[in-house]
Amino acid sequence: LSASLTEFELIARYFARAGLAANPAQDPAVVLGIGDDCALLNIPAGQQLALSLDVLVEGVHFPMAADPYLLAQRALAVNLSDLAAMGATPVGFSLGLTMPRAEPQWLDAFSAGLRDSATHYHCRLLGGDTTRGPLQLAIQVHGTVPAGQALRRSGAKVGDDVYVSNTLGAAALALQVLDGSLVTLSSEQRADLLRAYYQPEPQLCLGSALCCIASAAQDVSDGLLADLAHIAKASAVGMVLQANAVPVAPVVSDLVSQEQALLLALTGGDDYQLIFTANHAQRDNITQLAQQLTVRVTRIGRVVSGASVKVLDSQGVAMGFTQQGYQHF
Amino acid sequence: LSASLTEFELIARYFARAGLAANPAQDPAVVLGIGDDCALLNIPAGQQLALSLDVLVEGVHFPMAADPYLLAQRALAVNLSDLAAMGATPVGFSLGLTMPRAEPQWLDAFSAGLRDSATHYHCRLLGGDTTRGPLQLAIQVHGTVPAGQALRRSGAKVGDDVYVSNTLGAAALALQVLDGSLVTLSSEQRADLLRAYYQPEPQLCLGSALCCIASAAQDVSDGLLADLAHIAKASAVGMVLQANAVPVAPVVSDLVSQEQALLLALTGGDDYQLIFTANHAQRDNITQLAQQLTVRVTRIGRVVSGASVKVLDSQGVAMGFTQQGYQHF
Repeated sequence: LSASLTEFELIARYFARAGLAANPAQDPAVVLGIGDDCALLNIPAGQQLALSLDVLVEGVHFPMAADPYLLAQRALAVNLSDLAAMGATPVGFSLGLTMPRAEPQWLDAFSAGLRDSATHYHCRLLGGDTTRGPLQLAIQVHGTVPAGQALRRSGAKVGDDVYVSNTLGAAALALQVLDGSLVTLSSEQRADLLRAYYQPEPQLCLGSALCCIASAAQDVSDGLLADLAHIAKASAVGMVLQANAVPVAPVVSDLVSQEQALLLALTGGDDYQLIFTANHAQRDNITQLAQQLTVRVTRIGRVVSGASVKVLDSQGVAMGFTQQGYQHF
Repeated sequence: LSASLTEFELIARYFARAGLAANPAQDPAVVLGIGDDCALLNIPAGQQLALSLDVLVEGVHFPMAADPYLLAQRALAVNLSDLAAMGATPVGFSLGLTMPRAEPQWLDAFSAGLRDSATHYHCRLLGGDTTRGPLQLAIQVHGTVPAGQALRRSGAKVGDDVYVSNTLGAAALALQVLDGSLVTLSSEQRADLLRAYYQPEPQLCLGSALCCIASAAQDVSDGLLADLAHIAKASAVGMVLQANAVPVAPVVSDLVSQEQALLLALTGGDDYQLIFTANHAQRDNITQLAQQLTVRVTRIGRVVSGASVKVLDSQGVAMGFTQQGYQHF
């Protein structure tokens, strides 16, 4: 392979592969996949289309020389998490890939990572654009959600409970492994942290099941407090959280002080868990749902009037934080 | 404004502006626009969703220091042209914008260019991602097309006529103005060329009208011969073109030799005209359609058996070309 590899050859070799490329024979919503000016989708009656675009930039959103297989999985998962946060079911995705040169080994691993995730989440490649440039991935996911039932950020009501799925903090601590500042850990702990960062599990089943239960939802990408603040702002409410209720990932509690662990769970990003609010009357439904889906769901606070997200320590005193999650600029 | 400008402030200031951001009150297909985890669209019964993603990279697809107003217009037009090539009508677009820093003047001009095109083409911003990185634009357009009527590349039949809209070659010659190799021209000629490059007109009305008439279609992005070769390959046919029938842009004929002008029209890219094939029985319909839409449509050849796209000179002799359009790698 050399500079003479054209975009068409590259797509045919790496991206039209089985399990990755959308196929009308496998995917009932897909009318036409890769290879024409546009892809074509059928959106069933009674469903709305949910769509989200995220861009990942080398050196900003992922480390230089990141493992291409894992990078692909992270990129797709991050986008699928946006569908989960709306309660939508994946249909397919577009990929805009720019890279300095076409490296066969890199492309093979990258497209294998994409293929495995695309197959796992039933969200295959519909088309896109592959071109020369600094390494960046733009992924747009498409999903469907029953009309009128999408989970928005704007529906939280005073008195609602505030919930989060699974645990927080591991992806943020993984960044300290990746930048070399955390080196004293077992290989198992290292693997746990890197898995949390590179292979987050978009909470698609939970999101979909919450459509008739939650009043508002979003995923944790910038950090728990920053992302709850988005719900609070969109819903014109405040929130009060109990610090000791926030579920910290066990590997994080094992590796750093209790104070550090809480800070990572509250302000670290990249966990891609769901945060949501729901009426008090939904508590039993949510407990039952969590059991059915074998997802841990923790009630961490409540919605109040006001405009701020406060965290109370075990004495009921409001805690102060300087770092409010990742800022893009 | 400084480095403390957050993504949220930036979106609110530059991208949520009136005329640019999709608004459920204006756009019947838009259920939810900017500001949540996903945008939501209603796709009317009997319609399919057409979608296409293109990435433009500074220094590869547009010059360093390109005028941000014009760059925005080109980026959206290039993507809308993919909808035109399917016969689809625009619904809205997503934007993935990465830039080294948030420069107010640049952002103001860029978002004004996007706003003017979004309003003109009734294709407004649904959402996206804005982040730090080398200057790149990923745009994904969404449109609707009557179910089963989209114009594909694969429908050309032996005996069909081959057509192109308007004229070719000006965008390719504009590159010689932009790189400084063409300097002897009037300011009017210069303006004509730069308009062809930065503000191509996606042939949306023509594409939509061709849905029941053309057998195959695509837009000219890589060059007439290269793009006709895509139709030929997808349809498993060959084509024969008459060189003297190919409509060269007048400004190109005025500025370069006849031979150079033909080469630009055949192999230069970036014109975003439509090429399409149609049964001989459609000739009168196409003539009438072109008059109604005031679009020039020229019959330039015919579909034959085989696999190659040949160009015949005025003596009927096949011409040779080495440059077969832009290659992405």
